[in-house]
Amino acid sequence: MLTSPRSVININGELLSPREAKISVFDRGFLYGDSIYEVTQTIDGVPFFLDDHLERLYRSGEKIGLVPPYSPHDLRFELGRTLKRLGVQQAYIRYIITRGEGEIGLDPNLSHSTNLVIITKELKNYPKEWYTHGVHVIVADTKRTPTDSVDPNVKSGNYLNNVIAYAEAAKLNAFDALMLNHQDEVTEATTSNVWIVDRNNQLLTPPLASGILEGITRKHLIGIAQKAGLEPTIAPIARDVLDSAKEIFLTSTTKRLVPVTKLNQQKVGNGLPGPFFLDLSARYDAYAKESLSQEKPRWDEILSQLP
Amino acid sequence: MLTSPRSVININGELLSPREAKISVFDRGFLYGDSIYEVTQTIDGVPFFLDDHLERLYRSGEKIGLVPPYSPHDLRFELGRTLKRLGVQQAYIRYIITRGEGEIGLDPNLSHSTNLVIITKELKNYPKEWYTHGVHVIVADTKRTPTDSVDPNVKSGNYLNNVIAYAEAAKLNAFDALMLNHQDEVTEATTSNVWIVDRNNQLLTPPLASGILEGITRKHLIGIAQKAGLEPTIAPIARDVLDSAKEIFLTSTTKRLVPVTKLNQQKVGNGLPGPFFLDLSARYDAYAKESLSQEKPRWDEILSQLP
Repeated sequence: MLTSPRSVININGELLSPREAKISVFDRGFLYGDSIYEVTQTIDGVPFFLDDHLERLYRSGEKIGLVPPYSPHDLRFELGRTLKRLGVQQAYIRYIITRGEGEIGLDPNLSHSTNLVIITKELKNYPKEWYTHGVHVIVADTKRTPTDSVDPNVKSGNYLNNVIAYAEAAKLNAFDALMLNHQDEVTEATTSNVWIVDRNNQLLTPPLASGILEGITRKHLIGIAQKAGLEPTIAPIARDVLDSAKEIFLTSTTKRLVPVTKLNQQKVGNGLPGPFFLDLSARYDAYAKESLSQEKPRWDEILSQLP
Repeated sequence: MLTSPRSVININGELLSPREAKISVFDRGFLYGDSIYEVTQTIDGVPFFLDDHLERLYRSGEKIGLVPPYSPHDLRFELGRTLKRLGVQQAYIRYIITRGEGEIGLDPNLSHSTNLVIITKELKNYPKEWYTHGVHVIVADTKRTPTDSVDPNVKSGNYLNNVIAYAEAAKLNAFDALMLNHQDEVTEATTSNVWIVDRNNQLLTPPLASGILEGITRKHLIGIAQKAGLEPTIAPIARDVLDSAKEIFLTSTTKRLVPVTKLNQQKVGNGLPGPFFLDLSARYDAYAKESLSQEKPRWDEILSQLP
């Protein structure tokens, strides 16, 4: 059982400690991974890109016919209650909505109401070395699940594909694993999107059609790169482009941009975080700061409504 | 919340009612579907092919590096305790072993102990019409997850692929959905294996390489069919073989053999349960009865050890 770090969990409106936070074994999230989720964090007490994450939560649900009976305002309000109890300035946030409980069986109609779980906990800073030295990533043997089996653009409770790929990386003491699709194109890392600067200094990231989650950081970084005149190319990336890449970096909401300086034990480029990473990372941090300052008054209003 | 039918749940040795039977939201089965499971039943109080199911449970675990810290005897004994409390002669049995709880993250090493859940409940008989008239099955658009993404021969908590396919069937009021793989070969239904009698009266069932669970009923029926001189062919089955099939039937532990008499709204053969189904079904029932009578003394011994 989790005892540290500090954590508060909201289950259908009830605020609970980690020890108390339990869900029925008849919940379809537990039985089948029949659930959707989102992860973000607070920075100085303000949730990061919360609108984007809530929009994607509903979009994931739509794709598997799981309609959350909560408004975005409900979800913001419940998060506010939970974070107020948690009382830290930098918090991890995980929303989970499951298809709920019912008679055991695959038929989604066996359940009549969803379950809402919001896990919050204190979030420590990630090691600085990730950003200054970069990380080691492998290419997994495990192939990313195809879009017509379970679309990777649905952020669901079915993550065994990623767990198995991650386990391949863990066995080699690597930071993470890049996954290919069945056409041997690059897709994503196990919980991050991937970006590549190829030998011609072209900035590349895979399209949704390759089988990836449409990352929030990815989305914003595409806009940032376009504005900066870096003309990112969103097109399928063959596996061998990785081997001749000048730079590789990962993007995710909580980790932001992380440079990959070693791939399958080989240096990427000169083995140091490269100029594209350094430039885009600075631009993204400034963009994120601006977004948070715009979000702050809206969030303060939510907080002011809390009992 | 489930109130009927009668149900007793064992969580790590504790016997609980459906209302009490809860698992931590930090459990990896809940977060990622990082779990393995098995389903069987009792008949006249005796568990059906329990050895086979326990063997497969360990095999599933081995394939994803989840090593259950329980012996087969432990699992039998805990089932015995649970069924004694349940007190019915025909019970549904679901074993679930999850990778347990820990810090949130894909790394399987974040968890240090597994969780064991045994769900038992009263099992009603299935409708007779399934067997006398047959059922209507569709071919799903959703493709079975490939073996190199998440092997369908691992009976895991990642069942969204099957849930989505089942939902396609439910929308058309069909009994179930057959799934194809990415080579357009027949694999299995959402919780059953599939058998076909082709236009040349050849009995066919797909191989593991097509991407299927190695069913216990399938395994025994292959032996039964061989002994009966029906020479089952275990080889990839192209999609169009379905359309010209004389017979199709499904096999699963709890449902046994179920004839498919309608496929995508079209009659299969003459639209009635066929001679292969009738013959094999009778042989299987006799075989199952024999197996149960052999199992009974072993099970009585387990029961005699209970407090």
